Amino acid sequence: MSGVLFSFEGIDGAGKTTQVALLSQALEERGHRVVCLREPGGTPLGEKIRGLLLDRTEDPPSPVAELLLFAAARAQIVATRIRPELEAGSVVILDRFTDATFAYQGYGRGLPLDQILSLEGIASGIEPRRTWYLDLDSEESNRRRTLRGEAPDRLESEGDTFRDRVRAGYLERARSRPARFHVVDASQSVASIATRILQEALSLL
Amino acid sequence: MSGVLFSFEGIDGAGKTTQVALLSQALEERGHRVVCLREPGGTPLGEKIRGLLLDRTEDPPSPVAELLLFAAARAQIVATRIRPELEAGSVVILDRFTDATFAYQGYGRGLPLDQILSLEGIASGIEPRRTWYLDLDSEESNRRRTLRGEAPDRLESEGDTFRDRVRAGYLERARSRPARFHVVDASQSVASIATRILQEALSLL
Repeated sequence: MSGVLFSFEGIDGAGKTTQVALLSQALEERGHRVVCLREPGGTPLGEKIRGLLLDRTEDPPSPVAELLLFAAARAQIVATRIRPELEAGSVVILDRFTDATFAYQGYGRGLPLDQILSLEGIASGIEPRRTWYLDLDSEESNRRRTLRGEAPDRLESEGDTFRDRVRAGYLERARSRPARFHVVDASQSVASIATRILQEALSLL
Repeated sequence: MSGVLFSFEGIDGAGKTTQVALLSQALEERGHRVVCLREPGGTPLGEKIRGLLLDRTEDPPSPVAELLLFAAARAQIVATRIRPELEAGSVVILDRFTDATFAYQGYGRGLPLDQILSLEGIASGIEPRRTWYLDLDSEESNRRRTLRGEAPDRLESEGDTFRDRVRAGYLERARSRPARFHVVDASQSVASIATRILQEALSLL
């Protein structure tokens, strides 16, 4: 596959959406074809699954059902969007990918990491060339989301303890995958984060 | 768990729905608490997933996404309905269960059986005490569905070759699991099938 796959990770409020947009724009200005996709949506089927996952409902998914729904959305986006774009030579930028499953469902919810690994093999089978984890503590995440006036969705409303476990999971994955998974201090300015990420991205293209 | 789990399997038109109703009624008349559930629905979340699986759409699930959606619905029904009912001592009768995944997604679609086995372990982890497979050939299945005036859903519209592979898969599973998985000739009369199944069920309660 001649394209390159990048992913951004982080808890809500960390600035992923902003950085995805800035990187995408900067790469397009340099002549690259760029496709930005958001997990668990990014396909019509995936957007419907996203609704099932994030809506507040009387029948919330069991932890294992949640894991499997994320995996189904991932299988769809990998088969119908990511692989075809990579084969066509695009730069594909993902707003969350497999690391989020380990962080949220594994470390956050306590589901067995070996089950998640086995599911990732079934659903995806591909790995980003570089992952930027925008690291933010719970306090700052809460402050930013309050400023934006956002109501937390079902997952993010789990509270600070949950988010702390998610963060610890991301940091653990970063420690064990230093070549792919880079930690970025999300309390820095938007511009300085974007500059560093663009330099890294260009060095990989 | 003090309850007992039964399942019915078979291609559309084989008579599962009728036999589930007859067995349920006969057991209730004998004082058993009976709960009938239908896969992939049976829960509010599962019914929504059923819609994603069976609707004709411009973005049909990839084979792997389909497998994972079935698994998600299964995880939900096992966690929120089947296990609690079995713990409460009910007889739970399922209109299709894990064998259907092997038959439709494994033998029908050609997905790797080891992946399905691994998913079943994640999503379910329970096995029926007895499974009745109502065996019918494609020709008779078509004739019955035409009589009922039913439009085939997305899965059943795959055609005779697909259904033949599904049937071969069911028969293979029956051969390798003779203690649990019984083949019933679905061309027999409704009453004689119901009598045999009731006798077997009572001997297990």
